[in-house]
Amino acid sequence: MTIQVAVCGPRDCTGEDESNAREIGRLLAERGAVVICGGYTGVMAAVASGARSAGGMVVGILSRADREHAGPDLSIVIPTGVGEARNNIIVNSGDAVIVVGGSWGTLSELALAMRHGRIPVVQLGGWRLLDRAGRPVAGVRYVSSPREALAATGFWPDH
Amino acid sequence: MTIQVAVCGPRDCTGEDESNAREIGRLLAERGAVVICGGYTGVMAAVASGARSAGGMVVGILSRADREHAGPDLSIVIPTGVGEARNNIIVNSGDAVIVVGGSWGTLSELALAMRHGRIPVVQLGGWRLLDRAGRPVAGVRYVSSPREALAATGFWPDH
Amino acid sequence: MTIQVAVCGPRDCTGEDESNAREIGRLLAERGAVVICGGYTGVMAAVASGARSAGGMVVGILSRADREHAGPDLSIVIPTGVGEARNNIIVNSGDAVIVVGGSWGTLSELALAMRHGRIPVVQLGGWRLLDRAGRPVAGVRYVSSPREALAATGFWPDH
Amino acid sequence: MTIQVAVCGPRDCTGEDESNAREIGRLLAERGAVVICGGYTGVMAAVASGARSAGGMVVGILSRADREHAGPDLSIVIPTGVGEARNNIIVNSGDAVIVVGGSWGTLSELALAMRHGRIPVVQLGGWRLLDRAGRPVAGVRYVSSPREALAATGFWPDH
Repeated sequence: MTIQVAVCGPRDCTGEDESNAREIGRLLAERGAVVICGGYTGVMAAVASGARSAGGMVVGILSRADREHAGPDLSIVIPTGVGEARNNIIVNSGDAVIVVGGSWGTLSELALAMRHGRIPVVQLGGWRLLDRAGRPVAGVRYVSSPREALAATGFWPDH
Repeated sequence: MTIQVAVCGPRDCTGEDESNAREIGRLLAERGAVVICGGYTGVMAAVASGARSAGGMVVGILSRADREHAGPDLSIVIPTGVGEARNNIIVNSGDAVIVVGGSWGTLSELALAMRHGRIPVVQLGGWRLLDRAGRPVAGVRYVSSPREALAATGFWPDH
Repeated sequence: MTIQVAVCGPRDCTGEDESNAREIGRLLAERGAVVICGGYTGVMAAVASGARSAGGMVVGILSRADREHAGPDLSIVIPTGVGEARNNIIVNSGDAVIVVGGSWGTLSELALAMRHGRIPVVQLGGWRLLDRAGRPVAGVRYVSSPREALAATGFWPDH
Repeated sequence: MTIQVAVCGPRDCTGEDESNAREIGRLLAERGAVVICGGYTGVMAAVASGARSAGGMVVGILSRADREHAGPDLSIVIPTGVGEARNNIIVNSGDAVIVVGGSWGTLSELALAMRHGRIPVVQLGGWRLLDRAGRPVAGVRYVSSPREALAATGFWPDH
C-alpha cells in the first residue's frame, strides 16, 4: 500500500514554516507518498501546494461538514464534520507524522501522535517540551530541514 | 474538483447486492469519480474491487483507529478511530450517496444522507420507509440497476 | 448504577410527539432514571422539561462545541463539537433508547440503536420500515403510549 | 446553570498526582460543581473518588462505546465510542479545565483546551512548554496546590 504521511502545522504560520511545509510536500510527492493534511490555510495549504506542484496526491481532512474554506490543492476532500476531533483522524491516517511549526492545535496533533505510540513523529520548528525535572521529554524526533524530516520518518533513510 | 461518490451497504450482503456494488464501482471509476466507502467487507469490498478493476481511486473511511481488517482494494485508508460515527464522515464526503442493500448500519447512513439535505441520495435494493399514514417517505431516489443509480445522482444523466 | 435512558426525536415535531415526550420525561424522572437527549428544541426540549418538572436529571449531548441554543432544562451539558456524530453518543449512552416521532435525524438514531444490538429500542409514533419483501423489519418495539414505552424498555415491566 | 469543571490527567500517574486529583474532586464537589473526567483509572479515578466522597456529581466521558473499564465513582457515564476524540468532548464540556500531571494524552487535552481559547486552563504538576526562543509559552495557569487550582479557574477566587 502507498505510504501516507500526515503533515500538521498552524494556520497562522511563519514564512519559514510555510516554505518548509511546501518543500516537504514536494519531497513526499516525488517519493510517491500520499500527503494527509487539515486542508485549510497556512502550513496545510503550503504542504498541499508543494505536493501538487510535483504531481502528488493530497487528502484534506476538514473539521467542517462541508467544503467551505477547503484549499485549492486538495486531490480528495473529507469534510468530517467532527470539529477539532478531526486532528485525531489526521494523525491516525499517517504512517508517519511530520509537525511543522507551533500552535496549540498543532501541539494537540503532536501529542496525539505520540500517544498513538506506533508511528514516527518528526518535528521541524515549533515548541519544545520539558518534563517536571526540566529535561526534554523523550520521543519526538527534532530535525532542522525538510530533507531531515523525511529521513527521520524512517521511510526514506538516505533522503 | 473530482466528483466523490459515497457508496454504502452492509457487510453481510446478498450476492445481488455484491454484484450491484461491484458494477457501480466500475462505472464510477470509468467516469473518473472517486469512490468513498467504509473500507471493510460486503458491499464495501465489492464497490472497491469494481473501482480498482477499472483503475479507479477508492478511499476507505474506517471505524477503527488502525488498518486492521481494511480491504485490499483501497487506494487511501482513513482509520478514523471514531467507531460508527465514521458513517457521518462517509456521507459528508460524498457529492452523492448511493446505498446498496439494507441493514441497520446502512439505514443510518441513508438517514444521515437525507438529513444532510444537500446531496442526491440513491437507493438500489434494501428497505423501504413508510410515514405515519402508511405512505412512502419522500426524498430517496429508488432505482433498479447500477446504471440507473449513476443516472439518478444527476452527475451522469444520460445513462 | 443509575439507569440512563436515551430519548430521541425531531426538532420539528407534532404537538402529540411533544406531549408524549414530556410525559416520558416525567415518568422516567419519577423512576429515578437519568434522561439522555440531544439538548435542543422539539422532542428534546419536551422530554427535558418533563423530567425536570419531576425533579429528574437530564443530560444534553449537543452537536455544537458550545452551549448556544442549549435548552433551559438540562442538568448537565455536553457540547461534543462532533456535529451529527453526536447521535451515536446519545445512543451509546442509553441503557434503552426511546424514539418519539419521525425525521431523518431521528431515523438515524433509531438505526444506530438497532445496529448497536445490545439495548432495547422502543418507538412511539413516527415511521415504519419494510424489508425487500414488503414485511415489517423486525426488532423495534412499537408502542402507543408513554407508559407502554417505559414498560417496553424492560426496566419497568409493570409500568 | 451548574458550573462544570473538566479534570484531566494520565492513567499512569504519580502518587502525588493521584492525591492532588482526589483533593480537587472533593473541593469541586463541596462547591457544587459537576466534575467532568475521562472515567477510567489514574487521575480520572482519583478525581471521581474525591468528588463522590463529598456527595458530588461526576460525569465520565469514555473513549469506548460501552461501559467496560468505567470507574466505580461515576454518577453518569457517556460511552462516546469515538476513541481519543473524546478528549475534545471532555474539554468542550468544561467551564474550566484543570490538568493534573503529564502524559501525551493529557498534553493533547491541555493543548485542545488552550486552542479552545475561551476557558481558563490550569495545570498542577506535569510538563512545561518552551517556544522557539526557549521562553515559556504563555497562557496556561500553573499552580502548586489543589486549592490554588480552584482559585485559578476564577470561579472561586478566594478559595
